[in-house]
Amino acid sequence: MTHTFDALIALEEPTDGRPSTTGGGPDGPRTVTARTHPAWANMVGPYGGATAAQALAGITTDPRAQGRPAALTLNFAAPVADGTMDVIVDPVRTNRSNQHWTVRIAQESGAVLTGTALFAGGRETFSDTEVPLPEVPAPFDVDVTPYTMALPWMENYVFRIVSGVPTAASESSETVMWVSQTQSRPWDHVSLAAACDVFFPRIFARTGAPSPAGTVTYTVYFHTSPEALAAQGENLLCRAVASRFNEGHFDQIGHVWGEDGELLATTTQLVYFKGV
Amino acid sequence: MTHTFDALIALEEPTDGRPSTTGGGPDGPRTVTARTHPAWANMVGPYGGATAAQALAGITTDPRAQGRPAALTLNFAAPVADGTMDVIVDPVRTNRSNQHWTVRIAQESGAVLTGTALFAGGRETFSDTEVPLPEVPAPFDVDVTPYTMALPWMENYVFRIVSGVPTAASESSETVMWVSQTQSRPWDHVSLAAACDVFFPRIFARTGAPSPAGTVTYTVYFHTSPEALAAQGENLLCRAVASRFNEGHFDQIGHVWGEDGELLATTTQLVYFKGV
Repeated sequence: MTHTFDALIALEEPTDGRPSTTGGGPDGPRTVTARTHPAWANMVGPYGGATAAQALAGITTDPRAQGRPAALTLNFAAPVADGTMDVIVDPVRTNRSNQHWTVRIAQESGAVLTGTALFAGGRETFSDTEVPLPEVPAPFDVDVTPYTMALPWMENYVFRIVSGVPTAASESSETVMWVSQTQSRPWDHVSLAAACDVFFPRIFARTGAPSPAGTVTYTVYFHTSPEALAAQGENLLCRAVASRFNEGHFDQIGHVWGEDGELLATTTQLVYFKGV
Repeated sequence: MTHTFDALIALEEPTDGRPSTTGGGPDGPRTVTARTHPAWANMVGPYGGATAAQALAGITTDPRAQGRPAALTLNFAAPVADGTMDVIVDPVRTNRSNQHWTVRIAQESGAVLTGTALFAGGRETFSDTEVPLPEVPAPFDVDVTPYTMALPWMENYVFRIVSGVPTAASESSETVMWVSQTQSRPWDHVSLAAACDVFFPRIFARTGAPSPAGTVTYTVYFHTSPEALAAQGENLLCRAVASRFNEGHFDQIGHVWGEDGELLATTTQLVYFKGV
């Protein structure tokens, strides 16, 4: 059976006869078609991490891509409707050591996502991690957290919340949790781009109750190579906290470690929330 | 005398007779011309924060802009050459509560900057700051840090480094400093977008010596309103730290507070560095 994630990121050439590369040559935008997948549905439209994976897959599968994802910023401009979408990717600038892309997802209503990505080759340099690894029990010593909301996308992941649940008010928005994929699959940059969005909104951790909230901009900095990701175990250690809630938005700073303690990604969001 | 920052962000209509709005109507991209300013020069090309301010000013001065900057992500795709540049801004999606923009800066060599911005209106909601305010002396109890590098842009700011200097090796990359403008000017979102880039590269704080490094992607989340910014004192409290150095890049997480302790911005970067 096809993994739900592989089904999600299976992109197609446009079906209406348009050329997939519209720049009239090796340069310029390329359009591929993605499709929402029922296994990745959220309350309204798809899980943001699923759309992020489709956007990034539009670049990683482009024959012009060089290096591996180093940074990704996506803006959720409007709800994604169920069905097909155009993923339009453009390698705006290719340098010796990196490559700058723009990405856009369009549906009948217009642009639903805008964004940019940086690809780079890995180079041997000074290496050190400064952000402290949270002290937590091993994944299998933490109970699986039961789902409090019946959202299809959540069934793709197994959550083991160590601290900072969405069902109890707290003075801190910090959550620390182990997350693995329900169907095992080696980690790669595209699946990590999806997994960096697994955090429920920080306002839930503060108030202890769900309320309307949605990511408006989403950034992932990838710290490591495809080989290092593929060698990771199934469990990711995920920590997120807000810096400030104000005027209907809060930021979220997240870090995602592999099972062996390697820092894989730094991820940030700005999230809209309804007044509480 | 015109403030160097106002001179920097003075945009002009394109001089070659092209219409400034090219979308054939109220929608679509608009091009304005910006110019590098000698007071904002860095070692090669302009200070990144100066280019960021020009990009954001292209949006804030667009008559179609609604609300205030909430998030900005810019990618430095290639060196900015001294002279003029096209700043191309496009309000891709305007919703009830926010507006999504793309921005690009182009010179003869092609695109030198890509990016996106989110504008939003302020709404009264739950408000709280979680990130702890660093315990530091008042600005005027900290000695002004002498410039160790003769870079023109640095003369626009007065630096008072509390901890984490670029001239001594350390096991932590953290820097905490007070920063003010040399020529006093009320803070606004555009000048804050420039100031969020005042941190020297975190690798300097680790090694205690300058080495080739450059921001490749830059994000600012703005936490507050134009009125709250304008009411701030001259000194910003700035704190930055890296999470991980690896494979030629490191991330930087920064927070910028006003003189009264209000958190004004969360800012992140991914920075290229040469092997050490």
